[in-house]
Amino acid sequence: MGTREQLVDSARELLWERGYVGTSPKAIQQRAGAGQGSMYHHFAGKKELALAAVRRSAEELLAAADEQLRTPGTAVERITAYLRRERQVLKGCPIGRLTQDPDIVADPELRAPVDETLTRIRARLAEVLDEGRAAGELPASLDTAALAATIVAVLQGGYVLARAADRPEPFDQAVSGVLALLTTH
Amino acid sequence: MGTREQLVDSARELLWERGYVGTSPKAIQQRAGAGQGSMYHHFAGKKELALAAVRRSAEELLAAADEQLRTPGTAVERITAYLRRERQVLKGCPIGRLTQDPDIVADPELRAPVDETLTRIRARLAEVLDEGRAAGELPASLDTAALAATIVAVLQGGYVLARAADRPEPFDQAVSGVLALLTTH
Repeated sequence: MGTREQLVDSARELLWERGYVGTSPKAIQQRAGAGQGSMYHHFAGKKELALAAVRRSAEELLAAADEQLRTPGTAVERITAYLRRERQVLKGCPIGRLTQDPDIVADPELRAPVDETLTRIRARLAEVLDEGRAAGELPASLDTAALAATIVAVLQGGYVLARAADRPEPFDQAVSGVLALLTTH
Repeated sequence: MGTREQLVDSARELLWERGYVGTSPKAIQQRAGAGQGSMYHHFAGKKELALAAVRRSAEELLAAADEQLRTPGTAVERITAYLRRERQVLKGCPIGRLTQDPDIVADPELRAPVDETLTRIRARLAEVLDEGRAAGELPASLDTAALAATIVAVLQGGYVLARAADRPEPFDQAVSGVLALLTTH
């Protein structure tokens, strides 16, 4: 792996673990085993490197969501597969956690890839729900955009509950609760 | 207001805005208009001050939840009142946001009041759902503990979506989605 890639990987890990405010350029360089000169050769600064890191994490997240939502089955089965897939629950979401970072939300450029990723996941879930509604599996009156927001919120909030408790059970409960409501339709 | 109270209030504001990692003792002192000596007269350090601040925020949050959940009406009406009450959506939750703070979740003492607050809100919601189930308003098969976790997760995740978008609409959508599922029972 080249130095540029090592810097992006180290930035992804540190942003996930410590957030943007809690990550110094020096910490990224140390984890990447790269010098200061090398970092500034590849990136104008912490912000440019963070943007590259966030974009890479976003791509992986969207690809993973797409894989689960593409599986054969009914809409509810596909959403169940997405919600139940193996996750590092106690680490939380590498994208969602950035919304608690004051320097990310205050900067439109840094916030943009976070917003875009969550918006695309909601849109993808709404598509699946639309298919379920068209197939008569879900009620015709269902507001699929709202329910897609609920499903993503359950994941993001489930991480919050699990991290507070330092165990994954509250995440699993939150997911079970929404799936129980969804499957009784 | 005495200096001690001013320090706790400033710490609460800064923890809400910038988190624990992003808040220095100096920033708290400056916002409180207090000197370093004065802070260390009242508190052993940043951690002790943060604990006092988190406990105060937790009390307010629990009192507000209790007020909404105590209103007359059916279980679903009371939960609707709780979910729809006026909130500073773009600021997020002063307690939930701390779960994204690496120094909070790594320290059992700092994590304890965060966990306890979210656990108590879930327990309170489960009680309301239990009452609705006993009254025949909700199905007998309902897992009320799981659904309580879902409801708190929708709030916490709704903040994530709203902060990513820099507008409150995704929060409102997430809440509408779960209420629609709940009311069709």
